[in-house]
Amino acid sequence: MKNTAILLISCPDQKGLVATIANFLYQHNANILHADQHQDSELNLFLMRVEWDLDGFQLDIEEFDRHFAAIAEKFQMTWRLALSNHRPKMAIFVSRYDHCLADLLYRHQSGELKCDIPLILSNHTDTQWLAEAYRIPFQHIPVERDGKEEAEKDQLAVLRHHHIDLIVLARYMQVLSADFIKHYPNRVINIHHSFLPAFHGAKPYHRAFERGVKLIGATSHYVTEILDDGPIIEQDVNRISHRDELDDLIQKGRDLEKMVLSRAVRWHIESRILLYANKTVIFD
Amino acid sequence: MKNTAILLISCPDQKGLVATIANFLYQHNANILHADQHQDSELNLFLMRVEWDLDGFQLDIEEFDRHFAAIAEKFQMTWRLALSNHRPKMAIFVSRYDHCLADLLYRHQSGELKCDIPLILSNHTDTQWLAEAYRIPFQHIPVERDGKEEAEKDQLAVLRHHHIDLIVLARYMQVLSADFIKHYPNRVINIHHSFLPAFHGAKPYHRAFERGVKLIGATSHYVTEILDDGPIIEQDVNRISHRDELDDLIQKGRDLEKMVLSRAVRWHIESRILLYANKTVIFD
Amino acid sequence: MKNTAILLISCPDQKGLVATIANFLYQHNANILHADQHQDSELNLFLMRVEWDLDGFQLDIEEFDRHFAAIAEKFQMTWRLALSNHRPKMAIFVSRYDHCLADLLYRHQSGELKCDIPLILSNHTDTQWLAEAYRIPFQHIPVERDGKEEAEKDQLAVLRHHHIDLIVLARYMQVLSADFIKHYPNRVINIHHSFLPAFHGAKPYHRAFERGVKLIGATSHYVTEILDDGPIIEQDVNRISHRDELDDLIQKGRDLEKMVLSRAVRWHIESRILLYANKTVIFD
Amino acid sequence: MKNTAILLISCPDQKGLVATIANFLYQHNANILHADQHQDSELNLFLMRVEWDLDGFQLDIEEFDRHFAAIAEKFQMTWRLALSNHRPKMAIFVSRYDHCLADLLYRHQSGELKCDIPLILSNHTDTQWLAEAYRIPFQHIPVERDGKEEAEKDQLAVLRHHHIDLIVLARYMQVLSADFIKHYPNRVINIHHSFLPAFHGAKPYHRAFERGVKLIGATSHYVTEILDDGPIIEQDVNRISHRDELDDLIQKGRDLEKMVLSRAVRWHIESRILLYANKTVIFD
Repeated sequence: MKNTAILLISCPDQKGLVATIANFLYQHNANILHADQHQDSELNLFLMRVEWDLDGFQLDIEEFDRHFAAIAEKFQMTWRLALSNHRPKMAIFVSRYDHCLADLLYRHQSGELKCDIPLILSNHTDTQWLAEAYRIPFQHIPVERDGKEEAEKDQLAVLRHHHIDLIVLARYMQVLSADFIKHYPNRVINIHHSFLPAFHGAKPYHRAFERGVKLIGATSHYVTEILDDGPIIEQDVNRISHRDELDDLIQKGRDLEKMVLSRAVRWHIESRILLYANKTVIFD
Repeated sequence: MKNTAILLISCPDQKGLVATIANFLYQHNANILHADQHQDSELNLFLMRVEWDLDGFQLDIEEFDRHFAAIAEKFQMTWRLALSNHRPKMAIFVSRYDHCLADLLYRHQSGELKCDIPLILSNHTDTQWLAEAYRIPFQHIPVERDGKEEAEKDQLAVLRHHHIDLIVLARYMQVLSADFIKHYPNRVINIHHSFLPAFHGAKPYHRAFERGVKLIGATSHYVTEILDDGPIIEQDVNRISHRDELDDLIQKGRDLEKMVLSRAVRWHIESRILLYANKTVIFD
Repeated sequence: MKNTAILLISCPDQKGLVATIANFLYQHNANILHADQHQDSELNLFLMRVEWDLDGFQLDIEEFDRHFAAIAEKFQMTWRLALSNHRPKMAIFVSRYDHCLADLLYRHQSGELKCDIPLILSNHTDTQWLAEAYRIPFQHIPVERDGKEEAEKDQLAVLRHHHIDLIVLARYMQVLSADFIKHYPNRVINIHHSFLPAFHGAKPYHRAFERGVKLIGATSHYVTEILDDGPIIEQDVNRISHRDELDDLIQKGRDLEKMVLSRAVRWHIESRILLYANKTVIFD
Repeated sequence: MKNTAILLISCPDQKGLVATIANFLYQHNANILHADQHQDSELNLFLMRVEWDLDGFQLDIEEFDRHFAAIAEKFQMTWRLALSNHRPKMAIFVSRYDHCLADLLYRHQSGELKCDIPLILSNHTDTQWLAEAYRIPFQHIPVERDGKEEAEKDQLAVLRHHHIDLIVLARYMQVLSADFIKHYPNRVINIHHSFLPAFHGAKPYHRAFERGVKLIGATSHYVTEILDDGPIIEQDVNRISHRDELDDLIQKGRDLEKMVLSRAVRWHIESRILLYANKTVIFD
């Protein structure tokens, strides 16, 4: 594994942007490994992800900020720097369904997800055995009827204690309050078991079955204040037929949910996602 | 091409149904080529499609009705008989976009769609060249603002004159009135350029682009009184990315629309579709 | 879960087959839940799967054989009866790669795979932790250079001891001898990490990468004496691009392998597979 | 439609490449619309496609060559410049199957394929009606047994006469000689009706049917001296089942072939393809 830096930039598009950024990196002897850029012509936006090898880079990466500031200001950039050797801290929220949790834990264990998981947090204890199998700390915070505010206070305390960077809702069946989400803007990833915007809200498989659709879907997205309305990160579908009863939809859907959620989590961890206009750009 | 008969049945499920139907056909020496059945356990419905060779069948197919009546009554069947050597008469409605029309005409000409097309009907003249290239009669019935009622009257007259069995809306940009549709219940097939129920109504590609979905879709369905709400026949999707601008969505969507509409038309013509509970069963 | 019987039949096609079978079941008051049949017109073969509820069935299922024998003989049927409440005993062979094993264990634990797993058998000890996490007995039988014959003798002894019905090779990296396979004809399922027949044999991802294909695939199949040549049960593919290096192919391939293998195992367990002419019919 | 220039570059990877190219374009006031690059770390290759608006570009594009030469030489670049307002001249070779031809002609007529088609060339006359419908010149050059050399001489003469840039084999059933291909290196695109390298050579659908694969495929590729071995441009697959007979494979395959060939042709025309190591990079 190379030790790399990743720069994510969005700013108004104008001439000379690529030249300026490329010159800056070249001056400090960067060996660029990947560079990808995108222009949104309608919004006149320039979006870029560039990754370079820190081996041989002649700038103290701790001081990158100071050196890059003039360029960033000149071009009105929104930007952030990520380092591949920094493993973000991810908390997984789960209720009773355990398929997404099991999938994430396996991918983490096998090295596919380069993050730390200091915490699984659940309003039930059904999945505790999985946490133990993979040796991840498990915390049970029940959510009583009318007790959500209380529960969220406890959750936030635990999250802060563990310095969590990213929250993944792995079929967590409680709707988080707007207040909670404000603490983790664009850092809560959810999996919804439909092809959004179709069947947003409750019981999407039941409604897909009733409507007689020929494909079922799953959608991973960042959580915003409006339910199922946040920026979509990934979607996929699976063909069904009249032979599939509701239970078959749910079973086939589980595989979709796992895939679609794990891709989103991976892209987030690898700093491949840029957000703008309630959309995502995925630099793959 | 074999000369075959196709029997489509739906009725309350009960024991002895398959035995009764199979015995009836065997008694008259039917050579069954395909048989497919489905039980909807929730609604306690039995649905069946059976196709047999008329060569060697020892019943005058013209008198099938009379011989099958007792069975049909006993089991409260809704049923119909189709004959493979009967070519249904299909009218294509089109406005200015011609990709679905061109696709249907080619498939018809190549023998894939076993129907007659006595009529292309359009509120514009843009596609007349295609009709002429494939030697299909083209009729121009303009739809003036506030003139839909008048236009539909003319359309219905032409359709009746040609003894039309099936109407295909190949990106026809006018909404047909409930009154019109009553004349052709479950015999008007539309293509909607989204994965229904997402983005029903107008400008689905624009809305898909704005919402930032990662897949675009198309849906073919029977037209009912409620817009974009009829039984879905077929759906498919195509992956898009941030690199795709609105025009790319529209272009990629065209290929989806063609495929999804042509499959629906083919299945209808081959009597592969059974309707119930605002859904379709496709016996493929 | 209903207590059902499944009858799988293949025989020369002739008139009266469906009527005879349906009558037999109806006479004994069977409530048919699913019936699916297929005619191979080229080989003049009739293939059928029929599943009925044993609740209310007026024949001792233990004596089915005796009652059905006359019909089976008359129509020269190859047939077998499966009972849904009989859980087949499955052994999983694995080497070092653990993704397919982890996936199968999770699906078994969650109830998706209705079988018993009395045994995981490996030539390495790397996956023992997974066996322990899911509480499945793990047996380590090393395969030394020139020691395959010896190892297979040990393996066969263990398999016999556990009355194994089905062997799943979950990325087991040893080629089983023809002699071994003879003990489990059509009862060894393998996952090959390519779209067979492309890239049969060793290192398929390397060769796919070199050839510059645009999709990678995976294939599950029954193992026969000829390497990678047995009847294909399931295949799937995933799109790749020039951005994917060899490691990305391998990573994306893992998800394919898991899906494609688990579907095959499930269909086998649910008696949905009929074999003929080195092909499979999947009654889904 | 913007008037743009596209620069395609491949060269040994080294530091400063992006900076140098971006500076060069910026100096001449280029407004970059799209830029995409790729590093093949194994072969240490740098590959780039950059497209900019010629409106406002302060260099006579006719003299680009002269100005860019020093950079190209310094970095040992293989490069070429394409102009969006230059419409390449494409010849279509066809035999009797007309589905790919009909598809290409429709896409050309609708403006999706931005090229000229001065010539359809066939060893049969079956498709002449399509050429006439779309008003494209049709030339019949029969290929007699033992007369291929003679026929190719005639073909080459016609191609030269029309200054053809690109040859598309739209299910042309003759194998072109190595000698012929030398005249159009990397400028002959073929569609093969299988997922290469599976079923290369003759009768792929028959062999796919016999092998019992669960997906059929199609592959578009540049033609080289070795049959079905050239760089793959695009591939896709479609699911089939035991219900599909050979004729169904062929029919479903037609839709695949059309899609896969038309994408390849479009990418070639839009200068999105870079070739190296018998592979393609598609800058989409």
